[in-house]
Amino acid sequence: MFLRVDILQIDLPAPKRQDPNAAAALQELLGGKYGEMSTLGNYMFQSFNFRSKSKLRPFYSLVAAITAEELGHVELVSNGVAMLANGPDADQDDQGPGGDISGAPFEAMKDARLAAAFYSHAGGAVPVNSNGQSWNADMVTTTGNVVVDLLHNFHLECGARLHKLRVYESLTDPTGREVCGYLLVRGSVHAHAYALALKKITGVDLDKFLPVPNIPLGNIPECQKYLAEGSHRRLYTFSPACSYPQVVRRIDSPTRLGLA
Amino acid sequence: MFLRVDILQIDLPAPKRQDPNAAAALQELLGGKYGEMSTLGNYMFQSFNFRSKSKLRPFYSLVAAITAEELGHVELVSNGVAMLANGPDADQDDQGPGGDISGAPFEAMKDARLAAAFYSHAGGAVPVNSNGQSWNADMVTTTGNVVVDLLHNFHLECGARLHKLRVYESLTDPTGREVCGYLLVRGSVHAHAYALALKKITGVDLDKFLPVPNIPLGNIPECQKYLAEGSHRRLYTFSPACSYPQVVRRIDSPTRLGLA
Amino acid sequence: MFLRVDILQIDLPAPKRQDPNAAAALQELLGGKYGEMSTLGNYMFQSFNFRSKSKLRPFYSLVAAITAEELGHVELVSNGVAMLANGPDADQDDQGPGGDISGAPFEAMKDARLAAAFYSHAGGAVPVNSNGQSWNADMVTTTGNVVVDLLHNFHLECGARLHKLRVYESLTDPTGREVCGYLLVRGSVHAHAYALALKKITGVDLDKFLPVPNIPLGNIPECQKYLAEGSHRRLYTFSPACSYPQVVRRIDSPTRLGLA
Amino acid sequence: MFLRVDILQIDLPAPKRQDPNAAAALQELLGGKYGEMSTLGNYMFQSFNFRSKSKLRPFYSLVAAITAEELGHVELVSNGVAMLANGPDADQDDQGPGGDISGAPFEAMKDARLAAAFYSHAGGAVPVNSNGQSWNADMVTTTGNVVVDLLHNFHLECGARLHKLRVYESLTDPTGREVCGYLLVRGSVHAHAYALALKKITGVDLDKFLPVPNIPLGNIPECQKYLAEGSHRRLYTFSPACSYPQVVRRIDSPTRLGLA
Amino acid sequence: MFLRVDILQIDLPAPKRQDPNAAAALQELLGGKYGEMSTLGNYMFQSFNFRSKSKLRPFYSLVAAITAEELGHVELVSNGVAMLANGPDADQDDQGPGGDISGAPFEAMKDARLAAAFYSHAGGAVPVNSNGQSWNADMVTTTGNVVVDLLHNFHLECGARLHKLRVYESLTDPTGREVCGYLLVRGSVHAHAYALALKKITGVDLDKFLPVPNIPLGNIPECQKYLAEGSHRRLYTFSPACSYPQVVRRIDSPTRLGLA
Amino acid sequence: MFLRVDILQIDLPAPKRQDPNAAAALQELLGGKYGEMSTLGNYMFQSFNFRSKSKLRPFYSLVAAITAEELGHVELVSNGVAMLANGPDADQDDQGPGGDISGAPFEAMKDARLAAAFYSHAGGAVPVNSNGQSWNADMVTTTGNVVVDLLHNFHLECGARLHKLRVYESLTDPTGREVCGYLLVRGSVHAHAYALALKKITGVDLDKFLPVPNIPLGNIPECQKYLAEGSHRRLYTFSPACSYPQVVRRIDSPTRLGLA
Repeated sequence: MFLRVDILQIDLPAPKRQDPNAAAALQELLGGKYGEMSTLGNYMFQSFNFRSKSKLRPFYSLVAAITAEELGHVELVSNGVAMLANGPDADQDDQGPGGDISGAPFEAMKDARLAAAFYSHAGGAVPVNSNGQSWNADMVTTTGNVVVDLLHNFHLECGARLHKLRVYESLTDPTGREVCGYLLVRGSVHAHAYALALKKITGVDLDKFLPVPNIPLGNIPECQKYLAEGSHRRLYTFSPACSYPQVVRRIDSPTRLGLA
Repeated sequence: MFLRVDILQIDLPAPKRQDPNAAAALQELLGGKYGEMSTLGNYMFQSFNFRSKSKLRPFYSLVAAITAEELGHVELVSNGVAMLANGPDADQDDQGPGGDISGAPFEAMKDARLAAAFYSHAGGAVPVNSNGQSWNADMVTTTGNVVVDLLHNFHLECGARLHKLRVYESLTDPTGREVCGYLLVRGSVHAHAYALALKKITGVDLDKFLPVPNIPLGNIPECQKYLAEGSHRRLYTFSPACSYPQVVRRIDSPTRLGLA
Repeated sequence: MFLRVDILQIDLPAPKRQDPNAAAALQELLGGKYGEMSTLGNYMFQSFNFRSKSKLRPFYSLVAAITAEELGHVELVSNGVAMLANGPDADQDDQGPGGDISGAPFEAMKDARLAAAFYSHAGGAVPVNSNGQSWNADMVTTTGNVVVDLLHNFHLECGARLHKLRVYESLTDPTGREVCGYLLVRGSVHAHAYALALKKITGVDLDKFLPVPNIPLGNIPECQKYLAEGSHRRLYTFSPACSYPQVVRRIDSPTRLGLA
Repeated sequence: MFLRVDILQIDLPAPKRQDPNAAAALQELLGGKYGEMSTLGNYMFQSFNFRSKSKLRPFYSLVAAITAEELGHVELVSNGVAMLANGPDADQDDQGPGGDISGAPFEAMKDARLAAAFYSHAGGAVPVNSNGQSWNADMVTTTGNVVVDLLHNFHLECGARLHKLRVYESLTDPTGREVCGYLLVRGSVHAHAYALALKKITGVDLDKFLPVPNIPLGNIPECQKYLAEGSHRRLYTFSPACSYPQVVRRIDSPTRLGLA
Repeated sequence: MFLRVDILQIDLPAPKRQDPNAAAALQELLGGKYGEMSTLGNYMFQSFNFRSKSKLRPFYSLVAAITAEELGHVELVSNGVAMLANGPDADQDDQGPGGDISGAPFEAMKDARLAAAFYSHAGGAVPVNSNGQSWNADMVTTTGNVVVDLLHNFHLECGARLHKLRVYESLTDPTGREVCGYLLVRGSVHAHAYALALKKITGVDLDKFLPVPNIPLGNIPECQKYLAEGSHRRLYTFSPACSYPQVVRRIDSPTRLGLA
Repeated sequence: MFLRVDILQIDLPAPKRQDPNAAAALQELLGGKYGEMSTLGNYMFQSFNFRSKSKLRPFYSLVAAITAEELGHVELVSNGVAMLANGPDADQDDQGPGGDISGAPFEAMKDARLAAAFYSHAGGAVPVNSNGQSWNADMVTTTGNVVVDLLHNFHLECGARLHKLRVYESLTDPTGREVCGYLLVRGSVHAHAYALALKKITGVDLDKFLPVPNIPLGNIPECQKYLAEGSHRRLYTFSPACSYPQVVRRIDSPTRLGLA
């Protein structure tokens, strides 16, 4: 069961201008193979399908907790998409045309890369990648074998950071860059958590494998405040006994989830 | 942002026997066009894309609250799928073969309708329909126009109840029937809520349209306890200030969401 | 059974210039979720699957008649796509290169949004949306329940008008604008017809729901001649006892189909 | 523009019993790669995209006429699907459950191959193949080159007959066999017509290529009445100046379309 | 560039009987997410996209060599599919019906799980999974980062062995079991090779992670002859300077590819 | 079984500049309906599914040999894609950012048509078309009937040359033009070979049908050296007893494959 808190995980700065192609770029982080719908879908179905919960509870708890966080990431990226697609002044529902509509007021949309996003969704986010391909079940791995699933998740988080960096490197608007900066920090925690979980089961020190890719978070301005508050060292339970970010029960190391 | 509570919305009875085709039938309610992934996907992205939140807050709140409930429905159906696919004795992780594997111990799976569910997911749920077709973005409607979106949602809930009834009518196992019985009750609340929301905006008494389809919940044994506790008259906020089902802040009429 | 008349439902003005991105925009109205392939596919399969034709004949006749009209809409939009993709001077089959082909005569196509339309179809229309995604069966609703189907159709026509307006607002060329203007007028009739059909069955005055979205057809220049000839008040049978547009047996109100 | 005549191209005998798997088999002829949606989709979009109509009118007329006939084939197969899926006594709309629904009255549907057809469409036809895969734009060839298109069509009709024979050879029910028998006869005309068209353009006697595959229509009981009435030698225009089958303007050879 | 040798990598025993569902089961190993089309597609495109070949040549050579082997695996599984689908006596091309076809000689195919395989492909293999879903580009990972790619490949080989075991455990026919037995042996080599490659780059002893899943090859009868000949310890170059299996230049340890 | 030779079939000139849209154009020749993945997929699965090899061996050998050549074409186009996407100076693996990444060094990628190719694949080739749609099993024809398959292949090669010409006519960069020029020459051989094979079986002189489309190879500069060396008259076996291009056993006419 899930509960909803009506705030985003972080505050997003308003976009400087309407930029449909930047919104489309963020869609890669939403519906692309390594996007948030994929991390969500993988962990969500893995946790639903988990068996042997008594014996393997720490691993179940880890996947279940990150599932809840990924829901918030899907929400965050989606908000970023809608903000960039509609621009800084967009705070009104599309209820049909207002004044003179005979002059092609949206002519610019004809040349946007993801034109369908405007025509069918008024710039809103949907689970597709930066070229409009739908997210789908082929991007969900849930094998019934906990080691294979965790190994997949470890690889997924590494790949996801690579793609987040590329999107970051192609954006100039503060909205999209903030989304990427935050997700890069949180992704490093998830990769680390899966490495520790696999280490606990197999004895192989996968944590020494990291960071892959080798992204210097210290060089990314948008990461600094999250690093300063220690977000890169905390794994949250996203359980209702806590609120976020002020009052989430801190887990300063993965130990609290039984992983170390 | 979302939080996760580690209980299902209702208790599911154990299946009487392993029944992969019954699991596959439930998949229609998970990944089919009118399944829980669709209701979730529609309401989730509509709420993420909502503009004019100040002016239209009651409608945003309605869609946002049902989004959170639908997450629990996806979880519920997925658990039902995994239970039916693996049978009453399945409480162990698949860590590779145990004893003698030379005798085709899973020969029955070769003839199961959704054989891929066994081969690739050990019977676990994934977002596909009863024939293995993936859920996808074509099943998400988020138009940017609140009336069109709510009208779509109203139709979606009506259609979803029709399909839930058909799955119910094809199952004999208590696990799947319990899932359907509960979802039929909750679906009737959602259809009603969207009708009232549209009535508030347009003045047309869409609530008189219901029930469509005309399903006599009183004749369905599995619905009785949910009717008895009044679940068919309550809309929940699924906000963290409450817990569910005992302590969710009750909303005995949609008024609390500003809809009447 | 269907017959074909070798004229378009309306005359289309020649495009001013070749504009592949405008052609791609029109593709949203052909193969998008709310495009003409969808209205056609929904009504066509609903009418093929109709049971209880004796008892529910008026509703069958309504859906069957609109099916035939939608075929003409698919034809109309497709012609618009091909005209815009090839430009005003294109009246020759592509039989291979003529003169000097060593100079990249089609270099501009490399940067067109829907480049595949040129490479694989010489600019011809195919059932895809404005980003090249294929129309498919997920966009067909035929539930076996006439009320749910008609409610879906009512929502579909409302949504389709919203998307037609957006395409209109992004185009400057007369070809595409004429297509949109005509379809907006006809769409308003279809939405009204489905509302009346539902009213007859359920007693709910869904016609008061309209217009949704609230599009002032009077402000759209391309709609004027169709409004002047009363096209927004007529439902056509598209049966072979009539010809169109001059001699189609006029149905000045939906009564003729038994809907009022 | 298209008109609709409210009769099927042929009379279909009632099925002997409800047979969902036979209905699913017919779906291969509806939404499979070589099914009627494909022949329809290919010829429909080719005719919409045709350029140089003045110079190449006979070929346009051929493709346009067969398009209209294929619409009737889609209708015919769809009716066959719905009849087989619902059985001989099905003549009522699905308006929700009647009597006692607590006993799984549709338990048999759980094991049907195309279970989604029951759950989501009440057994109605939709554009998918015998395993539920959607028809899509990848099955449409419209290259802008009339010779390549006609060569594709020639191959398509040959392949379609092969698949129709296989479906025929797997069915025992008269409904499905009648559909196949009729379509095999008409398919042989279409293959021949495309061969003659290509012969006229290229001079190669492709008609000597036929029949491919070598199907002895004389051995198929269901073909006999269509052979007796000469249906295998006529190409119809499906234009509104005629009715079908009694009064269609007969074209005893393809000459009338300017092909010989 | 690739060359083709007209023999299978191993001899396959003839099937005991025609078994379309067993053929469909093998399809999971051909077109499923962890099937041979996926291993082929991943390594093939990774090797085509490889940059820095001089600096990273050993890793390029590894991926390139396994690509060639996977082509043979696709061939092997495809042959197994066609053999099982057609049975031990099938050695004739389908050139149309022979004798009496009026008696539904292929009635059994109507109830086969993957009926489309018979109708459209005469039982031949195509790149789909056991439920007819197409293999596609979402199953290809080529990130441009060699560590992430190799980590993905390591996970892929682990997952592939899990799925091969499940298919094996569901089959009784010698043809399918031989395919699985051989591929399990070869898959263990590939998993080991990727582990060593990653160890060389990162220093983490991923080889100690194996075997995941823990499959006792010694207990699988069909694996014995491959183990006896040492196939589980050899990595082949599949270069034309050698032939296979007799004269392939043996590589008794991955050292020869520069990995250790 | 296949072997790999670590050279491309031809030398490709370096691109003049990074041109992601030109790379995307080449993708149509890789993953489009008439691209190299399609020719490969058709011939590969046809040859795997071939029955009656003794009786029909020359036709099997033809399809098998061209399969191997098509693998090299997939390799060639993929290399062209990666070269154009990354530009002349790209010879380093993407191992994460180097210097200052705060300034959006890849801003240009945000506006590329196939942006996902950069974000998810670092510009590498994957089996998608020029708009990012995945290649899939719907593009594979393997019917079990050798005449229908060969007729399909003949049409496929004709269509493929049409599309190659269009891509050529839209490119200015030498890399892409060289790819097209070479493939046009080789495609003419394949079309001719299939025509001769069909002529041998049916007696119809399909070779007189060619060239379709009528492409004057003599006018295309990039074709000249391949014409000069006679590449348009040779069919290669791509067997390991030869090497390519210097020492491939020449087959100066298709006779060597038993086709004439």
